[in-house]
Amino acid sequence: MQSAVAELEKKGKAAKAASRKLAHLPTEVKNNALLSIAQSLSLREGEILEANRLDCDEAKASGMGEAMLDRLLLTSSRLQAMAQDVSTVASFPDPVGESFDARVLPNGLHLSRRRVPLGVIGVIYESRPNVTVDISTLCLKSGNAVILRGGKEALRSNGALVRVIKDAIKEAGVPEDVVQFIESTERALVNEMLKMKDAIDLIIPRGGEGLVALVTENAVMPVLASGVGVCHTYVDSSADLDKAVAIAYNAKVQRPTVCNALDCLLVHSDIAERFLPMVAGEWAKAGVEMHCDQRALGILSSNFKVAPASDADWGKEFLALIAAIKVVDSLDEALEHIARYGSGHSEAIITEDYSAAMRFLDEVDAACVYANASTRFTDGGQFGLGAEVGISTQKFHARGPMGLRELTTYKWVIMGSGQVRA
Amino acid sequence: MQSAVAELEKKGKAAKAASRKLAHLPTEVKNNALLSIAQSLSLREGEILEANRLDCDEAKASGMGEAMLDRLLLTSSRLQAMAQDVSTVASFPDPVGESFDARVLPNGLHLSRRRVPLGVIGVIYESRPNVTVDISTLCLKSGNAVILRGGKEALRSNGALVRVIKDAIKEAGVPEDVVQFIESTERALVNEMLKMKDAIDLIIPRGGEGLVALVTENAVMPVLASGVGVCHTYVDSSADLDKAVAIAYNAKVQRPTVCNALDCLLVHSDIAERFLPMVAGEWAKAGVEMHCDQRALGILSSNFKVAPASDADWGKEFLALIAAIKVVDSLDEALEHIARYGSGHSEAIITEDYSAAMRFLDEVDAACVYANASTRFTDGGQFGLGAEVGISTQKFHARGPMGLRELTTYKWVIMGSGQVRA
Repeated sequence: MQSAVAELEKKGKAAKAASRKLAHLPTEVKNNALLSIAQSLSLREGEILEANRLDCDEAKASGMGEAMLDRLLLTSSRLQAMAQDVSTVASFPDPVGESFDARVLPNGLHLSRRRVPLGVIGVIYESRPNVTVDISTLCLKSGNAVILRGGKEALRSNGALVRVIKDAIKEAGVPEDVVQFIESTERALVNEMLKMKDAIDLIIPRGGEGLVALVTENAVMPVLASGVGVCHTYVDSSADLDKAVAIAYNAKVQRPTVCNALDCLLVHSDIAERFLPMVAGEWAKAGVEMHCDQRALGILSSNFKVAPASDADWGKEFLALIAAIKVVDSLDEALEHIARYGSGHSEAIITEDYSAAMRFLDEVDAACVYANASTRFTDGGQFGLGAEVGISTQKFHARGPMGLRELTTYKWVIMGSGQVRA
Repeated sequence: MQSAVAELEKKGKAAKAASRKLAHLPTEVKNNALLSIAQSLSLREGEILEANRLDCDEAKASGMGEAMLDRLLLTSSRLQAMAQDVSTVASFPDPVGESFDARVLPNGLHLSRRRVPLGVIGVIYESRPNVTVDISTLCLKSGNAVILRGGKEALRSNGALVRVIKDAIKEAGVPEDVVQFIESTERALVNEMLKMKDAIDLIIPRGGEGLVALVTENAVMPVLASGVGVCHTYVDSSADLDKAVAIAYNAKVQRPTVCNALDCLLVHSDIAERFLPMVAGEWAKAGVEMHCDQRALGILSSNFKVAPASDADWGKEFLALIAAIKVVDSLDEALEHIARYGSGHSEAIITEDYSAAMRFLDEVDAACVYANASTRFTDGGQFGLGAEVGISTQKFHARGPMGLRELTTYKWVIMGSGQVRA
């Protein structure tokens, strides 16, 4: 363990030193390094797939489940897709160097803020080896060095990917030390990493709730965590019911396993008798399991296979074709339900009433608030941010979809001609 | 202790509920509440000074030192100054409601980011009772509820100030629950507070390094900490030496006890023989104690009372009329020294060489980088931010001088007409 800690500290120092060089590399050099990675992922496919095969064999032998195995597995076509994503990152604008709030002060000082990289980003992640490529390339583009700590199951796959990345960027003139990979799988090393505030400027946990909680509670440096999405769609008494059906269907069915999918449908009592059978008809066809409160149950149970909701259904992120349904008597009741059970991710109102829409958009405290649209739009690509680093449900630094810009900070640049303070 | 924790949780819930109302109050209501506080600080001076007298008597009896006693003391004129500051906060623009990055996406969705309050801000501070008024009013203006945990020595003074603030804002139509004050002085309560991430969105420590470290290491919510300032001024070989003397004098002497004052002067060897006696002459007149490296000592010791620098002088924040002096042979050596010993606060180069200035501004990693100006300008007021909340040496969320805007976050507002994701 002692030698693993010493090794970690050495990697921290190397990353910090390399980050200072990376911060000043021209965009073109960084983009060439990205294209070189994309190319190498194809050229060295054999080496990567062989390492992955060993990981997968070991995982199978130790009884890993099918879903987890699938997350661990790399294939030729998956590598192609990863290479494609890396090329796309190369095509995005470079956030570093952007200048803003520039002005000349009355005393003649030229003041501006300039966007610069954060420095070194630590990433702790679980079984998916594609995170190794994904996060390394986002960090590279935004000028940050990265220290990677992947899952034990993917050690050989991650190791092979890191070798490919390091060779590729070195060839393109980027110091290979900007990517550091922790080989030791000692669990206690994570806690050491969370204390290294001199070497790591930001820590990103990518994985389940347990990992996120561990990092949030123990890290002494800032944490960028993607939170859970418990998303409500409220259908107001004045909603255009056809639009409401289309939106509720899209929000629940189009991709039910992601954080911005609908979890709970709130329906105003004035239109519940008419609207609930409409949406339940469509949802039933798609195989959506409906967990209803008493009133919704009363309306739907004669014609649809629905279940009564339990207390645990409110505020639950289903990540599956399941929706909770509740009838409310007013916009206020909907707002209260969302304030109590929402996770601050994405919330929507469907209404043709202007004032109701305005109140909802004003009063709901969430990263993304919608009127008359599907919560599925909460996404860096959809919002035009280019690459998506994650979706934040924290309020500090970044909220909602995070792009490359959210991996940077700024510095104040002041140019004078001898000014002193009076 | 159990009842104190229960009381704390109750205050946390009350603050959260009140913050939802405060977030939507018009600017005028908030400003009227601020003016009402300013007025009440004068009207109820007797009650406040009496409470402060009891605190001061007790502090004296328990042997508190003069400097600490002076920090604790309130007087009629200090209250007037506080009232004036509160009125000034009322005059600043309201950061809440600002809309930015607004655009219509190709699919017709109207997308924008809207600035909103963070919610509830926890503040843990030491003896100065003016922080109670200062931070409450900054939070009020930025739409945030606040939970205050002041020092034991100032308990009665803070209690009186909070009573005055609560009465004043209530009268102006702001829920008094937006300001919560913790009366219990149990030390363990601070640790409880640092765990309350459902009730507190941001925690601000205001005090010494020990307090800041305690909060940074133990808080599970984001922390906004003002860091120490170890500030360098590098006088390049091509500097205008008269400007350099004026700037070094201002940076060290104008207000030596603050974080943006000069701590270390780096001088290029080409001009050291000429420049060092010039600046030492001025500094000596002002009583500046000079801790010199070997070469500077060689130049200055025959004509000035100077001391040899010890290792501890590099990277030290003096907060006094003391400066470390080092002769370097190149810009690179200066940059290395700053990278090693700087605290990422404010760093300056004095030079007439364009490329040297550009390199310094590009390569130094600090909140504020200067060419040809005094580091004393690092200040929210000087930068035109209005109120100053503190100066951040972190890179996350805010860097350098923080204004009211840095006490807010944003939400994404999306207005559609039935859009679903393909």
